[in-house]
Amino acid sequence: MCAFIVTQTDFTKGISTCTMDGVCMMVDPQLRVFDSTHNIPSFDTYTASTSLDFVVDYWPAGTVFVSVVDPGVGTSRRGCVAKLKNGSYVVTPDNGTLTHMLLHPGIAQVRQIDEAYNRLPGSEGVNIFHGRDVFAYTAARLAAGVISYEEVGPAYPVEEIVRHPLPCPAAEADGAITGMVASADTHFGLVCSNIPMDWFAEQGFAYGDVLEVSITGGGREVYRGDVPYVSSFGAVAVGEPLLMNSEVRTIQIAVNQENMTDKYKIGCGPDWRITLRRQAARG
Amino acid sequence: MCAFIVTQTDFTKGISTCTMDGVCMMVDPQLRVFDSTHNIPSFDTYTASTSLDFVVDYWPAGTVFVSVVDPGVGTSRRGCVAKLKNGSYVVTPDNGTLTHMLLHPGIAQVRQIDEAYNRLPGSEGVNIFHGRDVFAYTAARLAAGVISYEEVGPAYPVEEIVRHPLPCPAAEADGAITGMVASADTHFGLVCSNIPMDWFAEQGFAYGDVLEVSITGGGREVYRGDVPYVSSFGAVAVGEPLLMNSEVRTIQIAVNQENMTDKYKIGCGPDWRITLRRQAARG
Amino acid sequence: MCAFIVTQTDFTKGISTCTMDGVCMMVDPQLRVFDSTHNIPSFDTYTASTSLDFVVDYWPAGTVFVSVVDPGVGTSRRGCVAKLKNGSYVVTPDNGTLTHMLLHPGIAQVRQIDEAYNRLPGSEGVNIFHGRDVFAYTAARLAAGVISYEEVGPAYPVEEIVRHPLPCPAAEADGAITGMVASADTHFGLVCSNIPMDWFAEQGFAYGDVLEVSITGGGREVYRGDVPYVSSFGAVAVGEPLLMNSEVRTIQIAVNQENMTDKYKIGCGPDWRITLRRQAARG
Repeated sequence: MCAFIVTQTDFTKGISTCTMDGVCMMVDPQLRVFDSTHNIPSFDTYTASTSLDFVVDYWPAGTVFVSVVDPGVGTSRRGCVAKLKNGSYVVTPDNGTLTHMLLHPGIAQVRQIDEAYNRLPGSEGVNIFHGRDVFAYTAARLAAGVISYEEVGPAYPVEEIVRHPLPCPAAEADGAITGMVASADTHFGLVCSNIPMDWFAEQGFAYGDVLEVSITGGGREVYRGDVPYVSSFGAVAVGEPLLMNSEVRTIQIAVNQENMTDKYKIGCGPDWRITLRRQAARG
Repeated sequence: MCAFIVTQTDFTKGISTCTMDGVCMMVDPQLRVFDSTHNIPSFDTYTASTSLDFVVDYWPAGTVFVSVVDPGVGTSRRGCVAKLKNGSYVVTPDNGTLTHMLLHPGIAQVRQIDEAYNRLPGSEGVNIFHGRDVFAYTAARLAAGVISYEEVGPAYPVEEIVRHPLPCPAAEADGAITGMVASADTHFGLVCSNIPMDWFAEQGFAYGDVLEVSITGGGREVYRGDVPYVSSFGAVAVGEPLLMNSEVRTIQIAVNQENMTDKYKIGCGPDWRITLRRQAARG
Repeated sequence: MCAFIVTQTDFTKGISTCTMDGVCMMVDPQLRVFDSTHNIPSFDTYTASTSLDFVVDYWPAGTVFVSVVDPGVGTSRRGCVAKLKNGSYVVTPDNGTLTHMLLHPGIAQVRQIDEAYNRLPGSEGVNIFHGRDVFAYTAARLAAGVISYEEVGPAYPVEEIVRHPLPCPAAEADGAITGMVASADTHFGLVCSNIPMDWFAEQGFAYGDVLEVSITGGGREVYRGDVPYVSSFGAVAVGEPLLMNSEVRTIQIAVNQENMTDKYKIGCGPDWRITLRRQAARG
């Protein structure tokens, strides 16, 4: 059996994540533990949710994802294990981290971790590192088959899962397409909307179109420009903006070999809006 | 067989640690190699020691830890393998990195690596990367059973192991508790003392107490404040300080969702002292 | 079977590299995937090439290296798999990343990846993440034996591989040794030349010699000093420069426990030259 555990945290990779890996190895040395990101901004449960969303389709069914972005560690927020509709699991504090999982692939069941049963022996009285003592430990025992999913703890209604608001993309009466900035990558500076590329095509857009793009944060516009929709970076000069299909099959905007996120101070989440408008013929 | 190797360095994760992993795979492709931190401050053997201390209890007995923080690489400092009293091993330059291991879990034996026998073939004449050529190579051969512990090289007295001074926590005549700042995390800003939580309770302290905390570095006070001792972050408002139990079962101080280490420029090690004083009733 | 995949990118470690790992696990859960560096400067194919060069000898023959530094993703640049003369493979865009492999260990064959056959199902229409959809997927299928090397796609002449110019080290008529700065490490600040240590010895240099070192970038001198050639850091005081043998068996210059790269703003590549001149006896 090859049971996979994939971890993400806001700890940075280091001694803390190392103890999570080690706890898994103490539960079952056959488990295989992988890192996703450990650079989620501290306490940012929205980014924890988008980060899960980015990876969940690319691991075999049955993978146990562990997410530890936990501003409420040691409070009454629920620790839980969600069973996804694709057969994988997410072990996480229930604090908004599951938002995107509700949409895709969907959550079949959710159970609250019973810490009386699912807690690393010897960790009693320590309330700061549930990532190690509760979440990694429970994930490992579930992945290794030491406990069944039912033994995680009591089920509760999926409707009670804490979620961030996620405005839907829309086609406005005047022909504009509006969406939110779903993620704004800090490394390459790619700005990714929540507008699905297939739905965008159904609205009649195609490679070669030029669109007026406006991006606002909290209502204030930080970027406006005319941008071509193209198949890839190479279609525009270095330093020029482009609209293209993202790796999560949505519409994104970027500047070729520059960091657009940095340049225009673009953030992400429900407060960050993007509007695309077919450019009128100039005359 | 599942033999684990866990590495820590001051290299940052990258091509150097990759060659250490690869050397292990060339020794035995069945070995399993994991990263602890590779972000130890350059040449900081005190932090190398606390970093080992943080992880050593969370890996199965028999794990071979490799630590490469080695300001004296290529000099006459000893390379060694310590056999811990819990059955695991540490492969490291003997330069202070083993300080905390002497206290816990204790060192049963120590042997100097005989480089005439334990050196990557083909690496002769290169004196800069013992992490790859001596430490990873020896760790892998030991973990894989290619060499016995005795074949590492000659034993020497545990008393000769280089160590950093570690002042003990104490209860002063006036009722104050004094300790050192054992670690000062740069990421979340948690400031961890060496005062054991169980011993602290034996001194009569309990959740709900308010203590005057003073932190000094080199004799200069950098922080003073009245701080409640509570079970977790959620017991105080965001931005407020708290005393709580750390994940290594000692007393730590933090500011809820702020970085206390940064804010007050707090360091760690023998020069950094913390004093806790039960606050007199105000009248 | 233990088939190894070793990845390097300019992504930083995170959700993108995680999907590459996951794609490998979906191809064959027995594969073993390791990280080399993910901190290659964005779009820097020269450093991608030196980074491969640093690790390639330290992994078992048959290892499949994946390099994704890909400024031309989605353009007509070739994606390829090089079969090295040591039995390992490199999966990469053909954009200069293979430069050092041509010299050592040598490239036996190169094939262009046929994306009609070697592309992650479901990734059609997405042209931004060949690292996941083409390179990791092809590497995993090759490593797992799902496809043969021939099934990668059509072979093309090794002579067509894109390469960076690499000036050779030389002994000048006046006795000076000239070379290029092959790499300039940003972490410890080590400055590594392309002058082989064995050839250097053949030119008559030995430990204890003092040489005048000059380093120029684009023709402008950024460093000049008299530097002893010694066996290791310990031979000079902290803060003093030294010449020594690097871990890749070339001559390097460093400052003991300081960051020389930072201090003198030294870069690397064909434009960066180093000259070593035996110091005349002063009289």
